[in-house]
Amino acid sequence: MDNRPIGFLDSGVGGLTVVRELMRQLPHEEVIYIGDSARAPYGPRPAEQIRAYTWQLVNFLLTKDVKMIVFACNTATAVVWEEIKEQLAIPVLGVILPGASAAIKSTASGRIGVIGTPMTVKSDIYRQKIQALSPDMQVESLACPKFVPLVESNELTSSVTKKVVYESLQPLAGRVDTLVLGCTHYPLLRPIIQNVMGPQVKLIDSGAECVRDISVLLNYFEINRSRDKQELNHRFYTTASAKSFAEIAESWLGKEITVEHVRL
Amino acid sequence: MDNRPIGFLDSGVGGLTVVRELMRQLPHEEVIYIGDSARAPYGPRPAEQIRAYTWQLVNFLLTKDVKMIVFACNTATAVVWEEIKEQLAIPVLGVILPGASAAIKSTASGRIGVIGTPMTVKSDIYRQKIQALSPDMQVESLACPKFVPLVESNELTSSVTKKVVYESLQPLAGRVDTLVLGCTHYPLLRPIIQNVMGPQVKLIDSGAECVRDISVLLNYFEINRSRDKQELNHRFYTTASAKSFAEIAESWLGKEITVEHVRL
Repeated sequence: MDNRPIGFLDSGVGGLTVVRELMRQLPHEEVIYIGDSARAPYGPRPAEQIRAYTWQLVNFLLTKDVKMIVFACNTATAVVWEEIKEQLAIPVLGVILPGASAAIKSTASGRIGVIGTPMTVKSDIYRQKIQALSPDMQVESLACPKFVPLVESNELTSSVTKKVVYESLQPLAGRVDTLVLGCTHYPLLRPIIQNVMGPQVKLIDSGAECVRDISVLLNYFEINRSRDKQELNHRFYTTASAKSFAEIAESWLGKEITVEHVRL
Repeated sequence: MDNRPIGFLDSGVGGLTVVRELMRQLPHEEVIYIGDSARAPYGPRPAEQIRAYTWQLVNFLLTKDVKMIVFACNTATAVVWEEIKEQLAIPVLGVILPGASAAIKSTASGRIGVIGTPMTVKSDIYRQKIQALSPDMQVESLACPKFVPLVESNELTSSVTKKVVYESLQPLAGRVDTLVLGCTHYPLLRPIIQNVMGPQVKLIDSGAECVRDISVLLNYFEINRSRDKQELNHRFYTTASAKSFAEIAESWLGKEITVEHVRL
C-alpha cells in the first residue's frame, strides 16, 4: 500500500478527462494535477520546447511526493514519455499505448482514425504503435489544431465549436470505424465529435483507457491507496488563471475543487 | 517489441485456464507452459516445499528465454510470488491481486467468498489483499481440497464431481454475491460451481482477470509481440504423463498441441 497521491500533468485542462475517469474507477486515490494552461496548446510547439516544459511539470509533481506520474497529455507522451519513464524511479504512464491497444481491439474494418494536436500527428506515434502491434491496420491521422484552444476557453457547445469540429473532421468522415481521441482535451467535445462521425464510429478515449492501466500498475507495483476513511485532499495547480481553470474543472468533474496558481 | 514467449507455471493443468484466456485476448503471443502434475496438488504441501518447487518451475522457464513469467497458480502466488518477482529482471505476475480487485468491483453486498486450495486459504492472502484495498469488505474463505485432484484426473462432469462440488460449497451457499475462483483449476468446474451457487452469484476467474493485467504490462514494459505472420510455436511441458496432459489441454484449449514430459 502507498497512500501518496498520483500526479497528473497536462498542457492545460484536457487531462481532467483522465482525472474524471480516475475518480469514477478508483475513487479512493488522491490526485495532484498540474495544467500548463499559460503555455497551452503544446501541439504546435517544437519538440525541444515541449520536452523542456514537460520536465518542468514532472519536477513540480515530484516536489509533491507523488507515487506515480500520469502523462495525461498525448503531445507530451509522444515527445518525451519514454525518456522520462526511464529516468524516474516511480512508474510513469502515458496515454498513447492504452489508446492504441483499445483501437486495435475496437476496429472491425481495420481502418482506424486518429485525431490529435499537430505535434502528436507529426510524431506519427499512434500509427507506429498500432502497426507495430498489428501490421495490417490502416491508420489515418488528422491534426485538429483548433480544438484545444476552444476547450481551454470553455467553448464546448457553441455554434462556432460545432462548425469547427464539423469542418475539421470531414477528411475522416465515412473512412474509419474507430476514431482515437488522441488528445485528452477532445473528450470534452465528445458529443459533437460523435455527432459528426456518426453513431457507428467507436470513439476511443485514450485517457479513459489509461485509467485501466493505472489500476493494473497500482496492483503490480503494490502501491494502491487504502480505501480507508481518511479524507482525500485532491490538489489542482495551473500556470494560468485559477478561476478559469476551476470553472472548467468543476463543471467537468461535477464537484468543487481548490485550484492554485503556480509559476514554473 | 519483444517476440520472445510468455512463460506460465502451475502445479498442473489449472494454469491452462489462464492460457485459454490469453489465446482469446492476445492470440499473437507465444506460450511456454510448465505444469507440475507429478507433484500436484500443491495446496496441501508445506510452504517451504511449494517455494522450492516453484523456483524449479521458474528456473525451467528461464532456460526457455521467456520475457515474462505468469504464476498461473494461486498457491504458488500466495507463497512465493513477491520473493520471486523481486529477484527476477523480467516482469512476474501473480493471479491473486487481479482476482481480488475484480471481486471488489463485482460485489454489491460487500460479501465475497473465496475458494482455493488449503494453502491459499491458510495464507489468508485474498482476505488480506481485499481488505487492504477495501476495509469494509467481508470475506469468507473456504478450502476445497478435493477439486484439484478431480480436475487433474479429468473428472470434470461426472456425478461424483457434481456431488463433491455441491457438498464442498454448502458453507458459502446464500452467503455471498461474488465468489472468487481462487485456484486456476476451478474454472474447469465452472458450470457445476455456478449451478451450485446459483445464477445470482458472480464468479471471478482470477486467471482470466490476470490476462487483462498481462496485456497492460506488455504495453507498459513495451514487450508486446508483433502481430506479424510468423507462426507461433507454443510449447507445453509436464512433469507427469504427456498424454494425459494433452488430453485435458486439447479439450480445454480446443486445439491440438504438443506436450513434452520433463524431469525437474
